[in-house]
Amino acid sequence: MLQQVEEMNTDVAEQYRITQEPFYRVTGAEEALYQAAYARRMPVMLKGPTGCGKSRFVEYMAWKLQRPLITVACNEDMTASDLVGRFLLDKDGTKWQDGPLTTAARIGAICYLDEVVEARQDTTVVIHPLTDHRRALPLDKKGELIEAHPDFQLVISYNPGYQSLMKDLKQSTKQRFGALDFDYPEADMEAEIVARETGVDADVAQKLVQVAHRTRNLKGHGLDEGISTRLLVYAGQMIAEGVDPQAACLMTMVTPLTDDPDMRQTLQAAVETFFVN
Amino acid sequence: MLQQVEEMNTDVAEQYRITQEPFYRVTGAEEALYQAAYARRMPVMLKGPTGCGKSRFVEYMAWKLQRPLITVACNEDMTASDLVGRFLLDKDGTKWQDGPLTTAARIGAICYLDEVVEARQDTTVVIHPLTDHRRALPLDKKGELIEAHPDFQLVISYNPGYQSLMKDLKQSTKQRFGALDFDYPEADMEAEIVARETGVDADVAQKLVQVAHRTRNLKGHGLDEGISTRLLVYAGQMIAEGVDPQAACLMTMVTPLTDDPDMRQTLQAAVETFFVN
Amino acid sequence: MLQQVEEMNTDVAEQYRITQEPFYRVTGAEEALYQAAYARRMPVMLKGPTGCGKSRFVEYMAWKLQRPLITVACNEDMTASDLVGRFLLDKDGTKWQDGPLTTAARIGAICYLDEVVEARQDTTVVIHPLTDHRRALPLDKKGELIEAHPDFQLVISYNPGYQSLMKDLKQSTKQRFGALDFDYPEADMEAEIVARETGVDADVAQKLVQVAHRTRNLKGHGLDEGISTRLLVYAGQMIAEGVDPQAACLMTMVTPLTDDPDMRQTLQAAVETFFVN
Amino acid sequence: MLQQVEEMNTDVAEQYRITQEPFYRVTGAEEALYQAAYARRMPVMLKGPTGCGKSRFVEYMAWKLQRPLITVACNEDMTASDLVGRFLLDKDGTKWQDGPLTTAARIGAICYLDEVVEARQDTTVVIHPLTDHRRALPLDKKGELIEAHPDFQLVISYNPGYQSLMKDLKQSTKQRFGALDFDYPEADMEAEIVARETGVDADVAQKLVQVAHRTRNLKGHGLDEGISTRLLVYAGQMIAEGVDPQAACLMTMVTPLTDDPDMRQTLQAAVETFFVN
Amino acid sequence: MLQQVEEMNTDVAEQYRITQEPFYRVTGAEEALYQAAYARRMPVMLKGPTGCGKSRFVEYMAWKLQRPLITVACNEDMTASDLVGRFLLDKDGTKWQDGPLTTAARIGAICYLDEVVEARQDTTVVIHPLTDHRRALPLDKKGELIEAHPDFQLVISYNPGYQSLMKDLKQSTKQRFGALDFDYPEADMEAEIVARETGVDADVAQKLVQVAHRTRNLKGHGLDEGISTRLLVYAGQMIAEGVDPQAACLMTMVTPLTDDPDMRQTLQAAVETFFVN
Amino acid sequence: MLQQVEEMNTDVAEQYRITQEPFYRVTGAEEALYQAAYARRMPVMLKGPTGCGKSRFVEYMAWKLQRPLITVACNEDMTASDLVGRFLLDKDGTKWQDGPLTTAARIGAICYLDEVVEARQDTTVVIHPLTDHRRALPLDKKGELIEAHPDFQLVISYNPGYQSLMKDLKQSTKQRFGALDFDYPEADMEAEIVARETGVDADVAQKLVQVAHRTRNLKGHGLDEGISTRLLVYAGQMIAEGVDPQAACLMTMVTPLTDDPDMRQTLQAAVETFFVN
Repeated sequence: MLQQVEEMNTDVAEQYRITQEPFYRVTGAEEALYQAAYARRMPVMLKGPTGCGKSRFVEYMAWKLQRPLITVACNEDMTASDLVGRFLLDKDGTKWQDGPLTTAARIGAICYLDEVVEARQDTTVVIHPLTDHRRALPLDKKGELIEAHPDFQLVISYNPGYQSLMKDLKQSTKQRFGALDFDYPEADMEAEIVARETGVDADVAQKLVQVAHRTRNLKGHGLDEGISTRLLVYAGQMIAEGVDPQAACLMTMVTPLTDDPDMRQTLQAAVETFFVN
Repeated sequence: MLQQVEEMNTDVAEQYRITQEPFYRVTGAEEALYQAAYARRMPVMLKGPTGCGKSRFVEYMAWKLQRPLITVACNEDMTASDLVGRFLLDKDGTKWQDGPLTTAARIGAICYLDEVVEARQDTTVVIHPLTDHRRALPLDKKGELIEAHPDFQLVISYNPGYQSLMKDLKQSTKQRFGALDFDYPEADMEAEIVARETGVDADVAQKLVQVAHRTRNLKGHGLDEGISTRLLVYAGQMIAEGVDPQAACLMTMVTPLTDDPDMRQTLQAAVETFFVN
Repeated sequence: MLQQVEEMNTDVAEQYRITQEPFYRVTGAEEALYQAAYARRMPVMLKGPTGCGKSRFVEYMAWKLQRPLITVACNEDMTASDLVGRFLLDKDGTKWQDGPLTTAARIGAICYLDEVVEARQDTTVVIHPLTDHRRALPLDKKGELIEAHPDFQLVISYNPGYQSLMKDLKQSTKQRFGALDFDYPEADMEAEIVARETGVDADVAQKLVQVAHRTRNLKGHGLDEGISTRLLVYAGQMIAEGVDPQAACLMTMVTPLTDDPDMRQTLQAAVETFFVN
Repeated sequence: MLQQVEEMNTDVAEQYRITQEPFYRVTGAEEALYQAAYARRMPVMLKGPTGCGKSRFVEYMAWKLQRPLITVACNEDMTASDLVGRFLLDKDGTKWQDGPLTTAARIGAICYLDEVVEARQDTTVVIHPLTDHRRALPLDKKGELIEAHPDFQLVISYNPGYQSLMKDLKQSTKQRFGALDFDYPEADMEAEIVARETGVDADVAQKLVQVAHRTRNLKGHGLDEGISTRLLVYAGQMIAEGVDPQAACLMTMVTPLTDDPDMRQTLQAAVETFFVN
Repeated sequence: MLQQVEEMNTDVAEQYRITQEPFYRVTGAEEALYQAAYARRMPVMLKGPTGCGKSRFVEYMAWKLQRPLITVACNEDMTASDLVGRFLLDKDGTKWQDGPLTTAARIGAICYLDEVVEARQDTTVVIHPLTDHRRALPLDKKGELIEAHPDFQLVISYNPGYQSLMKDLKQSTKQRFGALDFDYPEADMEAEIVARETGVDADVAQKLVQVAHRTRNLKGHGLDEGISTRLLVYAGQMIAEGVDPQAACLMTMVTPLTDDPDMRQTLQAAVETFFVN
Repeated sequence: MLQQVEEMNTDVAEQYRITQEPFYRVTGAEEALYQAAYARRMPVMLKGPTGCGKSRFVEYMAWKLQRPLITVACNEDMTASDLVGRFLLDKDGTKWQDGPLTTAARIGAICYLDEVVEARQDTTVVIHPLTDHRRALPLDKKGELIEAHPDFQLVISYNPGYQSLMKDLKQSTKQRFGALDFDYPEADMEAEIVARETGVDADVAQKLVQVAHRTRNLKGHGLDEGISTRLLVYAGQMIAEGVDPQAACLMTMVTPLTDDPDMRQTLQAAVETFFVN
């Protein structure tokens, strides 16, 4: 019967396997550091601003290491049960249903908790026994203690710009992770990404990146965050669809970010500097 | 069996199909921009004041693009389960019931989340994997990962006047959308709309629009919002029913908006300027 | 089977039909305005102080228009499910039970939400699709979209004296209603009402009304609200039962309103001015 | 079958019937006023400090009027369902269970809501339709509208000393009640009550009342409330059991009220003035 | 069948009967006063600091009076249902399960609610009808009114040091109890208790008590509470196990109480005064 | 049948038995003190900063004493039911499921509540009867009173650095425990631990410890906590995997701790002092 369980886990694992190489440009030592951490199954924390490629990097590493990947977008209404699992009512009574963290621990997946500070404390405490020498997950409600699969690893992301006094990880959580800093890619690489993902030519891509750079300096001076690579890709897509570049930039790089008239003026001026009508 | 699922989805889709052209007057480039965005299935955010036609525009585009439309009015007590779905108890145990967002992702509908900032954070985070390169919706409670239908698109609306420090979209949510600004229609077009929807003549319609314009300048100076096109239509309907114009305007354009005696005086004076007894 | 549904709805409608003309004195144009609004099925908001006859007016109009009336007293613990309906557990599993708003939309009743600002936001947002061109009610939990019966109309009441910064209707809700102001009836009419409902003679009724008028000027100067018509009727009933007028007024028009000794003195003096021992 | 229901209701009513005359001393016109109010089924509010006899008075009147009495001690965690009723799960599915208010409305009892301000707003709003011309109770969850039995009456109690800005009845609730003020009994009557209920002689009873009078003047000057008649009875009971009067007074009239050393000193001095060792 | 119920109750009562005399030293008139109160079934409130023997006293009195004792440790998440009982789901539907208060009222036990102010208000209000002339407990959810067994008595404990403005008993609750003050035992008696419960000799016990006395004077000057008798017993137990007295005192009388370095120094100095290395 | 229960308990106990000696270096008298406390089954509180070895110590003692160990990571959303147990729905109705605390009390395990202050008050109050002379656990919902197995002991951990005014143990909880202080190990021992657990040589281990010591002085001056032994082990592991020491230290000892640029500079300088490129 143990063999059956193994086979079933293998089936589940296939669902979460990444079959195509995700597009990710290595920009520093992050791949080597991650691999060393994975070799020791060290829990890893990815730090950086919105849309700079943290999620893409985890996908890339999961593909590289040939491990299944289970991603959970955390939020403030999420409970420990959403991660660990719960009993469901069946016609024969209650039946246990594994949550994503439990599944990952069983099948030896990389479990990626995106924006973990958004979650309530019971969700963050639940990962403690998985992130120290125990590498175990107690399912208290079921009375079962799961020993993590030898390939299991936990990864979390964290946006330092968001942290407030009210919402931060506890020190006893932080000190369970090695951490890697992320930022937007270098200008040339970002332009290459934009061109590749949208179909615009190198010149347009360069200009979009230059607009983005101007806005990123405004972070903390009226803008909560600079324009992410994702929004540059949106702008490129609109232009590739034949939309006038100024209108495309307005829709994707100005209007979503702010409603403040002065800030809009500033952003629009940045657009007009590079895209002349 | 896959074919059966297809057929069932087609049946569901029919329910949400818009069969008659909704009355909507294009006022700028919004149709072309939306079409370009839809071509790339880019998520779109519609920004603008109450009752200026955002919902009508989505209906119009859904009709134009021949896509089913599923609309959800968001509110602060709404949970992620209200969007995604939940298990219901049946005589044979629990049965999964798709929520509106899941249905839209399955059948390839446009899903329109009206006033999304009103919702709790778990409702806004739940849309993240549907609005990046994954285009997937994990039903964590069911252990299923839905890949969005190729025609699926997400649209949200957002009233900048409401935003407070306590209630705003997270940057990591905002930066997943292209955005279009909306405002009340130009005077001539608004008068045409009022005349067409109520049966009053062009002269009365013009006067109603002029009253509205006066009040819209009071926004932020004692009025939270100006008079919406909807209220102009209400006024026109009352007049068309034979009600005295001043009484009709009082009932539909003054009394609903404010209880402040001075502001009421001001609004009433605006009415009397255009509708003399 | 459609016919069966029609018949069932007719049965339900009978329950909510008002068979006797409610006692209501028309004091201005409110009847004509309401009828014009109903002709267009315009949602209507009734504004005015406690106990001035708003509920009675809706009953009167429902009787006049020969429509069933479903009244819901809103409160801050009410949820959208209380209005729309919910699944109940049955021996064969779950069974859907329509809430009062759903019933009203199905059978073509006037649905009257009394003191709607007391309700939580999900209750107020749930009425949005019923109050615009859609005239539909999505039962998200059931996956059904109800189109309102052609005779259905929504009416809400609203006491401007209560509104605080914390509790008010959203502009996007307010701008869905035509509104009518209500106040206590004119002195002669109020005296007639008191006499008719209690059996006291015209002189006593006049005096009771005069006491009420004195206290209504104290609103905002130590009294939250003036004495309502209902309390005058209570006073009249006590007097008609043979109770001494001063004692009757004390019990019904002074003691319920305030515990402040000075204010009690003032109110008692007003009573003694008109009812000498 | 209607007859069966009648019989069943009669059985239930018997449970709540008061078979022995409760000990209550009429101190003013309260009996006559209550009887006049009951003749019109006017809802009544009893106002007064803790332990001054409000509950005893309702019992007395219920006995006098030969009506069953259903008492509910309100608290801030009570919901409308606790008053109105709820569905319970049975082996054949859900079964409706009437709450105390519903039972009272069906069988024609006096329903006494003790300290109603303690309850949440949904509990207070639920009584509205029972306290105006409708005299009905909508069981929204069951889809039933109960017309109150002709003998039904609602009574609430209210301690003005407790009221704070946060917790008070809404004006639209207050103005549905006639109100009677209550206070501790006159000295001679209170002494008679103490003697009768404890078995101490008239002299001891008089002394206990005099101690109480001294403390009642301290209300608002360090004491939240004065010593209630109930505590005087406790003191008398201890003395009747052979306990030394000073020790008895300390245990029942000083220690329960305050932990402030100065206030204890003051109270103890009052005891020692009347009970010399 | 009534006899069967009696027998069943007797069985349940046996469970809660105290078979061995608890170790309790009477220090004043508390035993006589409690017995007089119990003779009249007067509800009793025990006031005093942590660990001074309140719970032990109730056990002693229950043993003395040969009454079963049911103890409930109150907390702020406790609901009225935790005291009164609830419906549980069974294979034949729902089944009522008595809570500890209900059981006590049925079998005639002493019910001891430890630290009752910690509980939410619905738990404290639920005891009202059991603590006045009614001596009844309405099980609203079950529709049953239990008359308390003639031997039933309610006892609560209350630590005056804890009371804050936010958390206190309501006057209408306080004035239902006779109250007894408790404090740590006199020095000689406390030493005797320590010696008896740990096995250390009289000299060590005396020294431990002297250390405790020093710290009790620090209450309110940097310490929330002084060292309780329980901690003295802990210290004695460690010493009896062969642990060095200074280390034993540090572990049981210093480290648990405070983390403030200055206060620890002060406490340690007190220890070193009496236990020289 | 009693024998069967014994056997079943023995089976459960095996699950929680620690079969291999955990790596723990005794640094003072803590082992002897704990053994004396366990001899009397005294509840023990372990105080100290994050990651200094408290959990490892309990494991070590459980192994030494040959007792099963049940560990619970506490969090602010945990309820008493999570500790004590609850009824689960089964095809034959509800079935009781013991929580970890109940299991520990039945089988005679050491129950370790990690970071107990994080839990809500009902979780902390629930341990009271297990931590005084009663040594019992009332399962109120099941109506059962469990007497703790003679070998049962309760241990809690507590991080003094976290305590705020809002979150602290009640005095009546604190005074139920003997307490032991923990801190990071002495430099030589810590270096030995790092070398043993990672495979780096003694020199590298010494340097890592020296970096840690520098940062621990910054606690309270910009850092919430110093670098824990666990993070030193992480650093050693990365170095053992061939990662450049500076990069390894940055990833494990700087980036996880802080996002403040100045503090990062300071920490990086400390790293560079000991690890020169």
